[in-house]
Amino acid sequence: MVEMTTKKAVVLVSGGLDSATTLAIAISQGYECYALSFDYGQRHYCELVAADNIAKHLGAKDHKTVKMDLRQFGGSALTDDAIDVPEYGGEGIPVTYVPARNAVFLSLALGWAEVLGACEIFIGINAVDYSGYPDCRPEFVKAFETMANLATKAGVEGERFKVNAPLIDMSKAQIIQTGTKLGVDYSQTVSCYNPDKHGTACGHCDSCRLRAQGFAAAGIADPTKYQANTI
Amino acid sequence: MVEMTTKKAVVLVSGGLDSATTLAIAISQGYECYALSFDYGQRHYCELVAADNIAKHLGAKDHKTVKMDLRQFGGSALTDDAIDVPEYGGEGIPVTYVPARNAVFLSLALGWAEVLGACEIFIGINAVDYSGYPDCRPEFVKAFETMANLATKAGVEGERFKVNAPLIDMSKAQIIQTGTKLGVDYSQTVSCYNPDKHGTACGHCDSCRLRAQGFAAAGIADPTKYQANTI
Repeated sequence: MVEMTTKKAVVLVSGGLDSATTLAIAISQGYECYALSFDYGQRHYCELVAADNIAKHLGAKDHKTVKMDLRQFGGSALTDDAIDVPEYGGEGIPVTYVPARNAVFLSLALGWAEVLGACEIFIGINAVDYSGYPDCRPEFVKAFETMANLATKAGVEGERFKVNAPLIDMSKAQIIQTGTKLGVDYSQTVSCYNPDKHGTACGHCDSCRLRAQGFAAAGIADPTKYQANTI
Repeated sequence: MVEMTTKKAVVLVSGGLDSATTLAIAISQGYECYALSFDYGQRHYCELVAADNIAKHLGAKDHKTVKMDLRQFGGSALTDDAIDVPEYGGEGIPVTYVPARNAVFLSLALGWAEVLGACEIFIGINAVDYSGYPDCRPEFVKAFETMANLATKAGVEGERFKVNAPLIDMSKAQIIQTGTKLGVDYSQTVSCYNPDKHGTACGHCDSCRLRAQGFAAAGIADPTKYQANTI
């Protein structure tokens, strides 16, 4: 039987604001955190550099990046150069949705968690950043947990994997206030869907707009670097 | 809304006997099949060459291989050189279990299926080859389907993804008889967990033993090439 401890957690860290806050929350709750990132062919590759900085700065025990080319499938503005990132969000599920992305990421987190003997997985999804993404809803998280406990040796042997989504009911402003109290340096994070090669934000995409509104609503100075012509 | 058709299917093809049979079944049911393989750092890399030959021979519309290094996590005899492949199976879940492997593979199949507008996914799990793997059980398949329909844009928009496991109740002999009728060339398939660099089977591992017993029980000549000193 795999030795399990409740003190280890695998935390999905994308390099963005939400997952950095999630890592800070997991660490503040006493977990030894194993940060996991994905190099999946996303446009915003610079977020992986950010993820590594954040993991080190916040004190993750380890940080791994799994490389996996989702460009082979395409079907999203984030992984297919033929689909433009929209400047302003419309109705419904946006073209930045990457098919089954959170199912893939959580499944890989589950695999690492089982090897580590960790029962806890943290993911930084929330209702605002959700933007209509189906895999950011609480009912998806619950269904994933059920599947995870049937999929694994540890689940069969009586352990319970838990997917923690501590931001799920927070506004962007609350997330920023929480992370700021926990020492997150948001200048290290990249949220933009379409940054330039230096990681400087476009200021126009859905993700930039939600982020900027969050800092304004939180009453905290926005440390984001924007491209010169955007502000 | 993504245009869906029931005539396309994503089929997981490992290069082994079971998945080759599964692909033949899906094709015989009239599906246009998209074969999907994974280069995940497995010991038995030669199975990927076999997967490509099988997909071409049986007439898959396309075949993609997603590369993804599960050796970063280890934890299985198939992905960790520090863990030996056992010669004979013991009690419980064997060390060849790769943590959360089928959850990862099916999630990636789901992503491709959504991009293709396919509702059907085929996987070649069955009760014999199961060997105690938790992610080869019908209850896992059902839980994955529920999760899949909550995880995806297509699911939210009213399509139903289905995970087909046509071998799940078959014996190895029945699988071999079915595939033989459908024109599967089993000499192209690799089942061994520990083949030599030419893909020649060890003849001793769980997978080799189940395969050899299956041909014997089916009354069909075993076309497998075994290493000279094993038989």
